[in-house]
Amino acid sequence: MELEEKTLRSSYPFRGKVVTVRVDEVLLPDGKESKREIVEHAGAVAIIPVNEKQEVLCIRQFRKAAGKVLLEIPAGLVEQGETLEACAQRELAEEIGFMSNNLVKLSSFYPSPGFSSEMIHVYLAQELVKKTVDKPDDEFIALEKFPLKEGLSKIQSGVVEDGKTIIGLLMALQYPGL
Amino acid sequence: MELEEKTLRSSYPFRGKVVTVRVDEVLLPDGKESKREIVEHAGAVAIIPVNEKQEVLCIRQFRKAAGKVLLEIPAGLVEQGETLEACAQRELAEEIGFMSNNLVKLSSFYPSPGFSSEMIHVYLAQELVKKTVDKPDDEFIALEKFPLKEGLSKIQSGVVEDGKTIIGLLMALQYPGL
Repeated sequence: MELEEKTLRSSYPFRGKVVTVRVDEVLLPDGKESKREIVEHAGAVAIIPVNEKQEVLCIRQFRKAAGKVLLEIPAGLVEQGETLEACAQRELAEEIGFMSNNLVKLSSFYPSPGFSSEMIHVYLAQELVKKTVDKPDDEFIALEKFPLKEGLSKIQSGVVEDGKTIIGLLMALQYPGL
Repeated sequence: MELEEKTLRSSYPFRGKVVTVRVDEVLLPDGKESKREIVEHAGAVAIIPVNEKQEVLCIRQFRKAAGKVLLEIPAGLVEQGETLEACAQRELAEEIGFMSNNLVKLSSFYPSPGFSSEMIHVYLAQELVKKTVDKPDDEFIALEKFPLKEGLSKIQSGVVEDGKTIIGLLMALQYPGL
């Protein structure tokens, strides 16, 4: 069965700093035309840092889009010319003050492929060593840690509501040795 | 530590069918001002249907935003006045031709709280019975099923790249009796 849609025309009704909106006029598999609203977004990296006590180092951060403070693993946008691993190390240092000597990728996923091009790459960071760098001016975060083995109950109880954090916790719980 | 941001002004540079872009000028905790680009999006429901053989019923669907066909659990936007459970049953019927006599919520999460207000509610659907309804005109999907116990390897190998499907699979794998 043919599933692909061909793009006939694209327009850009909004170009922002974080997101750009593209509207594609597409040819559907049955020959009809339709429109797709797409939010273009640079890739992001998320890191689940697990220390030698098997604790997860998280942050609390106000999210304007959600309208509340969320408990999340460290994450950030990939900068121009930066590798995913370098981005992971930079965000670890900026947000929680560590770097990792044992960084492995757990998953790459599309959080909202129905309308967003964003892909998030999730890394597990172990063997953490302290590293202090200046934090970006506009980030206000509070640190929080909890045992990794409490991850599932924190998801089920709704304490963790952030998608990348849920995926990081569940994948880390399945990781050999954790 | 004060983390909240107060909204000073909002504007709406793009209003689409699926997404609306809102730009908030905000007052940061330190008294400075900044802008937040927010994609407003109606809530969505995703359903992981598991049949009596412990197989997951999935769909393949072209996602213009990702630029490729993705393997996903059934999902869709909540319609005006519709309960989450009614939406889950409607999407199950429209996309895979079943309804469920045993529907339980696994998680509610924000897939991209950095810029999107979307919340996805994930349900586990068991005790499936056939139900045929008309499919929406503009959906082109192919059905596919696989054993639930292969879920983790399908995530690790990159066969499953959709966030809500990863969360549905990992939460179902932790569900008592599955």
